[in-house]
Amino acid sequence: MSAIPTHVLAEISALVGNDQITTRHEDLHCYSYDGTATPHLPEAVVLPKTTKQVSGIMQLASRYAFAVTPRGAGSGMTGGVVPLRGGLVMAMTRMNRIIEVDAANQIAIVEPGVVTGDLQRAVKRHRLFYPPDPASLKYCTIGGNAAECAGGPSAVKYGVTKDYIIGLEVVLPSGEIITTGARTEKSVTGYDLTRLFIGSEGTLGIITRLTLRLLPLPPHKETFLLTSTSLQRTTEMVSEILNAHIKPCTLEYLDRTTIGVVSKFLTTPPTAETEALLIVEIDGERPVVEEQARRLQRLLAEQPEFSVRQASNDREVEEIWQARRAISPSVLTLRPNKISEDVAVPRSRIPELVSFTEHLARDLGLLILTFGHAGDGNIHVNIMLDRSNPEEADRGQQAKARLFRKALDLGGTLSGEHGIGFSKAPYLGEELNEATIALMKRIKDLFDPKHILNPGKIFPQS
Amino acid sequence: MSAIPTHVLAEISALVGNDQITTRHEDLHCYSYDGTATPHLPEAVVLPKTTKQVSGIMQLASRYAFAVTPRGAGSGMTGGVVPLRGGLVMAMTRMNRIIEVDAANQIAIVEPGVVTGDLQRAVKRHRLFYPPDPASLKYCTIGGNAAECAGGPSAVKYGVTKDYIIGLEVVLPSGEIITTGARTEKSVTGYDLTRLFIGSEGTLGIITRLTLRLLPLPPHKETFLLTSTSLQRTTEMVSEILNAHIKPCTLEYLDRTTIGVVSKFLTTPPTAETEALLIVEIDGERPVVEEQARRLQRLLAEQPEFSVRQASNDREVEEIWQARRAISPSVLTLRPNKISEDVAVPRSRIPELVSFTEHLARDLGLLILTFGHAGDGNIHVNIMLDRSNPEEADRGQQAKARLFRKALDLGGTLSGEHGIGFSKAPYLGEELNEATIALMKRIKDLFDPKHILNPGKIFPQS
Repeated sequence: MSAIPTHVLAEISALVGNDQITTRHEDLHCYSYDGTATPHLPEAVVLPKTTKQVSGIMQLASRYAFAVTPRGAGSGMTGGVVPLRGGLVMAMTRMNRIIEVDAANQIAIVEPGVVTGDLQRAVKRHRLFYPPDPASLKYCTIGGNAAECAGGPSAVKYGVTKDYIIGLEVVLPSGEIITTGARTEKSVTGYDLTRLFIGSEGTLGIITRLTLRLLPLPPHKETFLLTSTSLQRTTEMVSEILNAHIKPCTLEYLDRTTIGVVSKFLTTPPTAETEALLIVEIDGERPVVEEQARRLQRLLAEQPEFSVRQASNDREVEEIWQARRAISPSVLTLRPNKISEDVAVPRSRIPELVSFTEHLARDLGLLILTFGHAGDGNIHVNIMLDRSNPEEADRGQQAKARLFRKALDLGGTLSGEHGIGFSKAPYLGEELNEATIALMKRIKDLFDPKHILNPGKIFPQS
Repeated sequence: MSAIPTHVLAEISALVGNDQITTRHEDLHCYSYDGTATPHLPEAVVLPKTTKQVSGIMQLASRYAFAVTPRGAGSGMTGGVVPLRGGLVMAMTRMNRIIEVDAANQIAIVEPGVVTGDLQRAVKRHRLFYPPDPASLKYCTIGGNAAECAGGPSAVKYGVTKDYIIGLEVVLPSGEIITTGARTEKSVTGYDLTRLFIGSEGTLGIITRLTLRLLPLPPHKETFLLTSTSLQRTTEMVSEILNAHIKPCTLEYLDRTTIGVVSKFLTTPPTAETEALLIVEIDGERPVVEEQARRLQRLLAEQPEFSVRQASNDREVEEIWQARRAISPSVLTLRPNKISEDVAVPRSRIPELVSFTEHLARDLGLLILTFGHAGDGNIHVNIMLDRSNPEEADRGQQAKARLFRKALDLGGTLSGEHGIGFSKAPYLGEELNEATIALMKRIKDLFDPKHILNPGKIFPQS
């Protein structure tokens, strides 16, 4: 990969303005990492404000063949925004306008730098609802969510980011500007390029505008905290709830160790006998919610391993969510480092996956936590370790490899919502066959023949 | 395009068996057309039974560069399965096994030749639900539905075919076999190739297996027939219903002429003052359905232009649906031919689109019917004519071109669910910009460098 010639930095500066590009060492540090905590320094950071600027920068990148790594807030978990080959980081955070909320047609048009939580609040004023809710929603951006196809707890009922994006404007590595999709929910004009960009982790193009579909805001919600004395029964309960025709909008699970880490956020911490928690939320029209809540209570009344508490006010709900969202940052109080994985399995196989991780922890002498989106089989597995101990780091890598193999054996996938980035790239061939990977690589070559856009991601490096 | 060499026909015959290939003139006729009624004869028809056979045939097609047009039941509306360049038609109708229904994980794995209605019945036995319901569901196939991304009345609540396909097995033009997606609802491993194939109209690969996601069967449904004395108020009512937080699973509209064509299917035909009908269905848990039904009745009680009849038994529901599904075949009693379009617009713009078609009909002296999926803005416009009259056929083409322009002006799309095929291909550039079409063409070239797969579709022919 070429370095960025000095005169090109000047050209970019002229294009975007002096205050939208930096090469100061302190600034470069801020744009060198994501949730994987494996920093690589870029040569420069640019913060474009318009699609035209993005296009101009890509024309230069194409001509001089330097790497460009687009990014949002950098909250990713697989290294998607880490500028592995140096070059230019393109931070989309200043393209952060909500251009339009079309309430009559339940559509929003936004720039990629809009913070997910800000969008949710903005559409709520129109009694509308943007469901995807990654744990980082207070700072992550819609563009980053789209690039990684972010999920979140609500996915069990509402699906993930891709289910809410109906059109895109994208700048290709060549600088060409294309549009995909339509303003209507149904459109079959030509190939579905929208979905090809979503989840492509910034390797095919840079998203500069998104058309989002919205839902009517559910008028009512109830939140339940289920405390269980049996891990096995808790993971089984996930399918039992869904098969009882209860359709929760949250079905989150926390194992014993995870509970220990976040119990300080709860006014009434779980008792010592607690082996697992389930957070269950039901939303919708009030009569439906009430009917489903009764069904849940009936189902659980027959289960001696469970006790149920229904949140009686917003403060109690907020407390539960504060604890849930604090998991990722808080686990580092246990050990200095973590390998954070998000395999998904068909949900009937969750009990097997979770008991396998217990076995793995014992076998390798590691602390392993499991929690996350049980309702859609997307279990977050945190392998805790101290990277400064090479032997322990090696055991961590062994645990990760065995976890992936098990998830695939159970009919699952390497990643439910975090993406492949560089951290899972070496394992791609365990899930996809050779012909499939070869086709994906040919698509990458077609879009980005010089491999300037986010190099080193998704595909195993030779 | 090359003809199929005789020795290659013998090789294909050896590969699939004598009874799975035909060159008899009578047979070729049966595989020469679809709903557009513009037949082109193929040279041979093959009916493979396995993925391996499909792969073997494509290897031969690739080597000898002859055209292959895959098809299901041929119920398409834009010429997607018409073998424009002769060659081989590959009918997938004998690959029609439902391989697995995994009720615990709400997944089905099927071959492409499974008839949509058969699948719906099969999963219903597990209390599960496959929502997409094109009007041709009694004979169209899942593979064809996937290739065109078929919709149907239920799309207003449940989405279209693409929303229910989470994985594919596909044979590429080279004969390579790839797999896409996963068995889990969430998966972000590599590029989303599933969606790239869905709606690609058999131009990128041949779908040989599909993993479908299913929903719990809604336990209750109510059906309403709304009779209106005002077309304008009817098209406005579509948004009013949805904005009143009523979430119907059907919101179909029929204009006066359409009603005339199918009123013979109704025991109580609408009165002479009727200008339009709306079919509204609400499904779900009984208390929800009842609450939403009350809301609908309250909304309509204030509207002097509407009267409401609630179907009181299955026979009445069946009668309404028989009338709705009979529209497409029945309109040909009015005039010998039709141009059948399915533009979609943001639903707040439906009144403008419908009043434009009225203006168009007067202006060009043509009979034009409108009906269809008003809930998602996907209006079926049938331009009736006699093709044997060249001047009238020309006026029909003018009407079509003006309709497309209007739909795009209103923020809409050329096709909501029928695809582009060859009938809309000349208009692609009116919706998509040059860079976008160029990119789609490069994707086509990448997948199918010899353009052997379904040639002449989607892209304007030079």
